[in-house]
Amino acid sequence: MTTNQSPVTNPPTTNPPITSLPVTNYLFLRAALGETTERPPVWLMRQAGRILPQYRALRQRFPDFKAFVKTPDAAAEATLQPIDELGVDAAIVFSDILVIPEAMGLDYEMIEAKGPRFPKTIENQQDVSMLRSGAEAALSLEYVYEAIRISKRELAGRVPLIGFAGAPWTILAYMVEGSGSKTFSKARRLLYTQPVLAHELLQKITDTTIAYLRHQVLAGADLLQLFDSWAGELPPAHYRAFALPYLRQICEALPEVPKTVFAKGAWFALEDLAALPCQIVGLDWNISPEFAKQKTGGHKVLQGNLDPCTLYADTKTIEKETRAMIQAFGGKHIANLGHGVYPDTPLDGVKAFVGAVKNYDV
Amino acid sequence: MTTNQSPVTNPPTTNPPITSLPVTNYLFLRAALGETTERPPVWLMRQAGRILPQYRALRQRFPDFKAFVKTPDAAAEATLQPIDELGVDAAIVFSDILVIPEAMGLDYEMIEAKGPRFPKTIENQQDVSMLRSGAEAALSLEYVYEAIRISKRELAGRVPLIGFAGAPWTILAYMVEGSGSKTFSKARRLLYTQPVLAHELLQKITDTTIAYLRHQVLAGADLLQLFDSWAGELPPAHYRAFALPYLRQICEALPEVPKTVFAKGAWFALEDLAALPCQIVGLDWNISPEFAKQKTGGHKVLQGNLDPCTLYADTKTIEKETRAMIQAFGGKHIANLGHGVYPDTPLDGVKAFVGAVKNYDV
Repeated sequence: MTTNQSPVTNPPTTNPPITSLPVTNYLFLRAALGETTERPPVWLMRQAGRILPQYRALRQRFPDFKAFVKTPDAAAEATLQPIDELGVDAAIVFSDILVIPEAMGLDYEMIEAKGPRFPKTIENQQDVSMLRSGAEAALSLEYVYEAIRISKRELAGRVPLIGFAGAPWTILAYMVEGSGSKTFSKARRLLYTQPVLAHELLQKITDTTIAYLRHQVLAGADLLQLFDSWAGELPPAHYRAFALPYLRQICEALPEVPKTVFAKGAWFALEDLAALPCQIVGLDWNISPEFAKQKTGGHKVLQGNLDPCTLYADTKTIEKETRAMIQAFGGKHIANLGHGVYPDTPLDGVKAFVGAVKNYDV
Repeated sequence: MTTNQSPVTNPPTTNPPITSLPVTNYLFLRAALGETTERPPVWLMRQAGRILPQYRALRQRFPDFKAFVKTPDAAAEATLQPIDELGVDAAIVFSDILVIPEAMGLDYEMIEAKGPRFPKTIENQQDVSMLRSGAEAALSLEYVYEAIRISKRELAGRVPLIGFAGAPWTILAYMVEGSGSKTFSKARRLLYTQPVLAHELLQKITDTTIAYLRHQVLAGADLLQLFDSWAGELPPAHYRAFALPYLRQICEALPEVPKTVFAKGAWFALEDLAALPCQIVGLDWNISPEFAKQKTGGHKVLQGNLDPCTLYADTKTIEKETRAMIQAFGGKHIANLGHGVYPDTPLDGVKAFVGAVKNYDV
């Protein structure tokens, strides 16, 4: 982590000779703003990851996942790999949503093939009071901002760069549960037993996330995405009380860039998500394009939502399913999967998906 | 496991003196058949389990979970415990959905606090061909039928007894994946890469399940419930192709008793579930009563769907939320949680829930 640079100033760059500048790909930004585009832009959640042989080679240079995330040069390299290898229309900075709990003072370990584990979890008022938050906490994430600055420089305008963070409910879920979980019942219990404390924690996470994302934008992120991975664990009333108000605060605090909210499993809240001041709503693979269009009333650009398992199929099937998805959305659409691409997906399957979108004939 | 008895004949019982017979509680059966009842019947998924101190004491007598399940006297004792302790309106036989893979020849281990693990999984045609199925496989589950016969005798008509099985897609998911999983991507992949093999496996599971449930009915089960625990992992088109036709076969094969289909996460298939020849549709806690009533068009009795985490709250909150749920369903309703009760739920919370339903004043 470098702390000797201001997190808000781009470092001086050596401009490449003007003739070698690649053509800027504005497709994603145009689609994000609701313009009709010749084809949907395409990228994949978790495209910077284990599906790429280049990534697996890079990952081997680090003793653990966190050391990798905290090395800006390496994170930037991982960010760019899918642009070179897959030809997708956007880059997303290589990082993890759990840098926020860590910045707030709650350390975690990333255990290979198992996921994150927090040695200490949040249980009571004292635990919440001890957490750092807001600008102070966000300052410690300079390594992410530096990764964004390097990525932005190396992208040289080829495609836009997406910054991201976890949604407050999802971050709370990890901080209280201490790990992934089939039910997140410990985190959900807090909403019933200590609702005031839950709101206090959510506000601290929200304040930190806003400061964090503002730094990302200043470092060069062209768009932002919020991942509410455990949205689907909440009953609708709790999603309205404990998740949506904080998503709204974040969206309202960052008017300068287009924003995507991807709330996995929150089919029941699509109307509420459509009312947020964001431009794009991400969809998981359970939601039919028809249902999503009806519930969001055409107010949002929709992103998704091919079943990630489709990419295990043969090329013909992938092409057929991808085309069917694009047709079903019928515009105002960013092509993506309905979840992060699974790490064991064959590279050929990923390329068939990207190719099917790029060759789509309107 | 006893094999010296016919699985279809009730063993001779000593009739209790007629004067000591308790009054039979027909509430659940009346509600299941669509009758208007003075209050909704109430029971909890996983009520025979770790929430009860009596269960935890009984469990300690066995070296492992499977030995427990395979001892009919003990399974019957666990089946009756919630009737005595909680006063619920139905018993459900204590067993596990994974007895079906085992009966078909695919053994599993139940690892404490982690869940099931299959040392060998289904990958190809040879694996599927080697599986037993239908009547032959179901014969090896005599220990379940015996647990039902004992339970039925000891219940002596106090409440109806529910038999159950996993839905074919959910059973396939375990047989292919080999364990629980966050994504079941290995199982879902099979549907794309080897759809013909998947259908063959689903048919074998279905044949076995029908034979198994028929034995349960002959042994004394008054109603049946199918648990499609991983329904929510499938995209709608796959749920229609790989799940619903097999649920239909099972429902059609057992016209003699009321049947419940509980497909967790299958909000997108509620209209299809409402078209199945079953009487009750179970709902998870994401689905609002209004949405469920609209999608099922009043054709089904609805079961559920309080968030299991509600039972961690104080008594007043539990009572308020339970009453609100009953009011929102407004009849044709069986009160339950939206998922199995979580093992660490305080017994007082469970009792507050049951009490709130039983004291509900229409």
